[in-house]
Amino acid sequence: MFKIAVIGATGYVGTEIVRLLSQHPDVEITALGSKSFAGRKFSEIYPNYKNIIDMELMDIDIDTLCEKSDIFITALPHEASRDIIPELIKRGKRVLDHSAAFRFRKKEVYEAWYKTTHGMDDLLKDAVYGLPELYRDKIANCALVANPGCYPTCTILGLAPVIKNKLVHSDNIIVNAVSGVSGAGRKSDLAYSFCEVDSNFKAYGVTNHRHTPEIEQELSILGDDKVQISFTPHLMPIKRGMMCTSYLNLKDDIWTQESLYELYDKFYKDEFFVRVLTPGNVPETKNVAGSNFIDISVHFDKRTNKAIIISAQDNLGKGAAGQAIQCLNIMLGLDEKSGLCYPPFYL
Amino acid sequence: MFKIAVIGATGYVGTEIVRLLSQHPDVEITALGSKSFAGRKFSEIYPNYKNIIDMELMDIDIDTLCEKSDIFITALPHEASRDIIPELIKRGKRVLDHSAAFRFRKKEVYEAWYKTTHGMDDLLKDAVYGLPELYRDKIANCALVANPGCYPTCTILGLAPVIKNKLVHSDNIIVNAVSGVSGAGRKSDLAYSFCEVDSNFKAYGVTNHRHTPEIEQELSILGDDKVQISFTPHLMPIKRGMMCTSYLNLKDDIWTQESLYELYDKFYKDEFFVRVLTPGNVPETKNVAGSNFIDISVHFDKRTNKAIIISAQDNLGKGAAGQAIQCLNIMLGLDEKSGLCYPPFYL
Amino acid sequence: MFKIAVIGATGYVGTEIVRLLSQHPDVEITALGSKSFAGRKFSEIYPNYKNIIDMELMDIDIDTLCEKSDIFITALPHEASRDIIPELIKRGKRVLDHSAAFRFRKKEVYEAWYKTTHGMDDLLKDAVYGLPELYRDKIANCALVANPGCYPTCTILGLAPVIKNKLVHSDNIIVNAVSGVSGAGRKSDLAYSFCEVDSNFKAYGVTNHRHTPEIEQELSILGDDKVQISFTPHLMPIKRGMMCTSYLNLKDDIWTQESLYELYDKFYKDEFFVRVLTPGNVPETKNVAGSNFIDISVHFDKRTNKAIIISAQDNLGKGAAGQAIQCLNIMLGLDEKSGLCYPPFYL
Amino acid sequence: MFKIAVIGATGYVGTEIVRLLSQHPDVEITALGSKSFAGRKFSEIYPNYKNIIDMELMDIDIDTLCEKSDIFITALPHEASRDIIPELIKRGKRVLDHSAAFRFRKKEVYEAWYKTTHGMDDLLKDAVYGLPELYRDKIANCALVANPGCYPTCTILGLAPVIKNKLVHSDNIIVNAVSGVSGAGRKSDLAYSFCEVDSNFKAYGVTNHRHTPEIEQELSILGDDKVQISFTPHLMPIKRGMMCTSYLNLKDDIWTQESLYELYDKFYKDEFFVRVLTPGNVPETKNVAGSNFIDISVHFDKRTNKAIIISAQDNLGKGAAGQAIQCLNIMLGLDEKSGLCYPPFYL
Repeated sequence: MFKIAVIGATGYVGTEIVRLLSQHPDVEITALGSKSFAGRKFSEIYPNYKNIIDMELMDIDIDTLCEKSDIFITALPHEASRDIIPELIKRGKRVLDHSAAFRFRKKEVYEAWYKTTHGMDDLLKDAVYGLPELYRDKIANCALVANPGCYPTCTILGLAPVIKNKLVHSDNIIVNAVSGVSGAGRKSDLAYSFCEVDSNFKAYGVTNHRHTPEIEQELSILGDDKVQISFTPHLMPIKRGMMCTSYLNLKDDIWTQESLYELYDKFYKDEFFVRVLTPGNVPETKNVAGSNFIDISVHFDKRTNKAIIISAQDNLGKGAAGQAIQCLNIMLGLDEKSGLCYPPFYL
Repeated sequence: MFKIAVIGATGYVGTEIVRLLSQHPDVEITALGSKSFAGRKFSEIYPNYKNIIDMELMDIDIDTLCEKSDIFITALPHEASRDIIPELIKRGKRVLDHSAAFRFRKKEVYEAWYKTTHGMDDLLKDAVYGLPELYRDKIANCALVANPGCYPTCTILGLAPVIKNKLVHSDNIIVNAVSGVSGAGRKSDLAYSFCEVDSNFKAYGVTNHRHTPEIEQELSILGDDKVQISFTPHLMPIKRGMMCTSYLNLKDDIWTQESLYELYDKFYKDEFFVRVLTPGNVPETKNVAGSNFIDISVHFDKRTNKAIIISAQDNLGKGAAGQAIQCLNIMLGLDEKSGLCYPPFYL
Repeated sequence: MFKIAVIGATGYVGTEIVRLLSQHPDVEITALGSKSFAGRKFSEIYPNYKNIIDMELMDIDIDTLCEKSDIFITALPHEASRDIIPELIKRGKRVLDHSAAFRFRKKEVYEAWYKTTHGMDDLLKDAVYGLPELYRDKIANCALVANPGCYPTCTILGLAPVIKNKLVHSDNIIVNAVSGVSGAGRKSDLAYSFCEVDSNFKAYGVTNHRHTPEIEQELSILGDDKVQISFTPHLMPIKRGMMCTSYLNLKDDIWTQESLYELYDKFYKDEFFVRVLTPGNVPETKNVAGSNFIDISVHFDKRTNKAIIISAQDNLGKGAAGQAIQCLNIMLGLDEKSGLCYPPFYL
Repeated sequence: MFKIAVIGATGYVGTEIVRLLSQHPDVEITALGSKSFAGRKFSEIYPNYKNIIDMELMDIDIDTLCEKSDIFITALPHEASRDIIPELIKRGKRVLDHSAAFRFRKKEVYEAWYKTTHGMDDLLKDAVYGLPELYRDKIANCALVANPGCYPTCTILGLAPVIKNKLVHSDNIIVNAVSGVSGAGRKSDLAYSFCEVDSNFKAYGVTNHRHTPEIEQELSILGDDKVQISFTPHLMPIKRGMMCTSYLNLKDDIWTQESLYELYDKFYKDEFFVRVLTPGNVPETKNVAGSNFIDISVHFDKRTNKAIIISAQDNLGKGAAGQAIQCLNIMLGLDEKSGLCYPPFYL
């Protein structure tokens, strides 16, 4: 059994990681770190875990943590990472991080969009972007994995087949995205209170959401071309779930609904967690809720010669914790599906 | 007091019309027609109306209806309209219809997208598209008003300033739309049951939704150019509310956030029900729920030289019943705001 | 036009009062007071009011307020009331207060359950409990009205017919209550965040909720007997709405479903806002949402000789703001229904 | 691996059973029966199962089913059971049934409350009520298990400690219950459509819900006394979840909060799935959603000498499918927790 520590275990991503690890046949949770709740039982903070995980939350003490665990999953405020991650790497531990700090090839991009100094940029060259469908081999062999943002995962996997094959114009791509509320994390904030959110729908971060450069970086690498997107996220009144509806102009006038579908189906035929839906079907967030699946449909809009791509995932699943476990499995040489092969919630 | 009949009063649009008429100072409901519930009290079907509107629902008998009422608001299945509307017009009554039948200039478009024969196309030449912001004068003087679809209203009002002023490329317009569930009407249908819809989000009608030609017709007239859109609606788990997020390529490289806002603010400065939000704000459906307002924000995406336009309305309000009352006021020579000037629900 | 000030206008009760006053034909809002948002437009805090109420929120300055207004509706934290209400009364103004401070006949009860010193108890003797169905005449002629709590209104009106007529054992009454989330007010609090509340149901304040003594006080007066209740509130994931399901043991063995219904129907036959449902119907919160109605059904449980009484209201409506307007109308000698006679939301 | 058939696999209970079986280490689904969808893939009906369970649904043919499977889990309309269950028993198969038909000791009770003839009452004497906490040994050795109703499970487990120990008056018990919408099953029914249910709360089946005699039967056996309850269920706008708040009059005047808690804690100390919460905590449905746990808190109401008991479960979990798997484990001699030992959803 591999020994895993989760640092920042009481946020929504943290608790989802704990949920998945608790069902994983090949790993063992050996430490749960939390600044806010150190000394209390995990099941006091999340009473759903009573009798399942009553482990005590511990303060973030590097020495103790390093004794207990081999691999560290970190889900911390960006600043807190700085105190911990470089030290863990120095001590030869492997880290799977959920912050944005290690997702960018260039620290300048991070610093410009996140309006802070990086401070750990010497680690950037060895960090791997933790999207298994693109970087499986690198993930297997690295010490520091940067788990992608939720919107980037949903967008990049949706667009990869047409971008990689250079089938679309790369300068006029629209990504219209919608997220459930858990994406905002666990916090006291009027803007995310029930009465403000329920029965409501709104956009946010219009023209300036911080996941934009992350998506553009990866699509540009994938398409070997400068890819530019218009990305607009929205908040919808559900807990879990994310959908990206993307609009791309096809270069050639040769496509049909069937040929686009076949392109996608073939591209992802070996990817268990990417489910390409047959023509006539569309993704629904309930079909992926609670799981590591991402459902994708591609639609040919004959009238405008566009490909419309719809991708849906659980923002806490393939968009965060599920993907983390998928990466973890790869890092540990386990079956990539280990601990992840159950049906989504639906209800 | 003007005497109004509502025919098809027990659907969700019908009941919203009744709700608004019941508060209107200048009109009186003289008949409520319903095929399904004739003979029962309106407040038996919608118990919220108990002690407010206990009027009996009547069968759709033209003679009786014509005795009682001067103006008819019809919200019927498309087929049922055929039996009633031509006859009402023949008898000199004025009709405000909620079906799609009279929204199109050419019957061929209707027949192609709605897959039926029109059968009342001799009325088309005199019908007016009931969007007051565009056709106020014609509405005032006509006998037959076709209340627009909910998505078309939300889209057209959002795009009118840039289309009318020919500021954007007309062949690459994306409209990403989201609707609350009441838009599907009141019916027993597993697809709209609580357990299937709650906590879920999905697209539908991708590349082929029937509101597409309606939007294109009106935008083409407005821009005096062939306008083509990619329109994708989605279903979200709220009762009331609709949002369109539209992406348009600006022709010129001269815009700023401020100048785009000023364009919109000026365009709608005399329109009470169109609220252009100041920069930094975005529409939220709760801010228009239950009202005839449509909130619009325009965003300049400098990186891609796009205008991103977000428009939000209540699909039952400005998208249906509210707009009907606004048209009715115009038809009757009343203050356009009469009976419509109250705050949206928010909560 | 009567001149009304609302002090504490930006909480959920405050904004609902503003919503109702804005539609009231006989009154005018002359001041909106807010400690937190003084100097900003009301429509900045609640953007749904844009173009409807753009009035600036003012700091709570007694002199200015007294110049502008005749009647004051206060919805403040209990402590803030202490600075304002005695002074307003001293200056001859009339006050309609939403705190608990003036609901009790004895200051000791207030101090015991609210764990604070009262500090304004010299006003108690002249304060009237603002439940129009019980204290209409007193409300008409007093300077200080204490608007009842939401649970007490829902419970007392539900139980009044059997208590007043001494038909039930007064020592074994169960009140099981459920409230929508807006009852908790507008605040940043993790416990009321969307992800914690949505799809969840829980009890709170079991055996010790502060509305218990308020209910017992009024039922004891009404029944001229010591009435004791077991009161258990729950939180449900809706914004607006409250339901009390009460269980009472009938003293005599003479009742039928029909005779119980007749008792209720007769008891409330002159009360417009209390709708007694005919046998076979049950209250639903959507039928009262957004209104001042309370719907009540009474059920005879033959097997156990119990009366089961179900009462539903909007916690912000008859449970708070609606009732405030009803009291205001009485205080001002207006038609009690003025500004309140519209259909509930349903949708 | 034990071979299990699920007959009636496409209802909400059926799909939850399939979800749980798919994760169970010791059993194998060998047949999924469905009258409505025979011939289609299970994952066509529930697309969340794509790539997880693509098994074809089969018509309900006894011969084929008996070849494939050893144990049958049936979740069928009451009538359909009649064609199948007696035949399965005759052929020596074991059956775990979800209908009400085998829950009653006397066919007369079933026939009176369900208003139908039983028709399989010769099987009643050998059927066991499938509540493991009460009938574990009998379940282990029987051929026909009647899975309890959701409300009965939630109520009986909540009340068992005080009833079994004869601590409360048995003639004045109130059970106020609330259920999520999935309890109504998967069907096209206006009453369960999103727009009718969302943001709404209502009671139903007041004084006459069919789970009443089931609860009374089991509590009477448990307390060796005639137990009579007033049971009132309500519908709340969540998918999964059930709560019973029960009010009981304690016979003696000797109790404290602590002693009541200890009674409960001791009573259930060996029951993994019954979690007795420590004083100060209350059950929340999110803490049991998706699981086989039932959370119980007991509250001493000193003022009225009552025990207030709050019990929460997932109506599809411990209230249906979870309990079925627990029974199945017992029937098969497996660890009772097998396949059920994961954290509830919370989010």
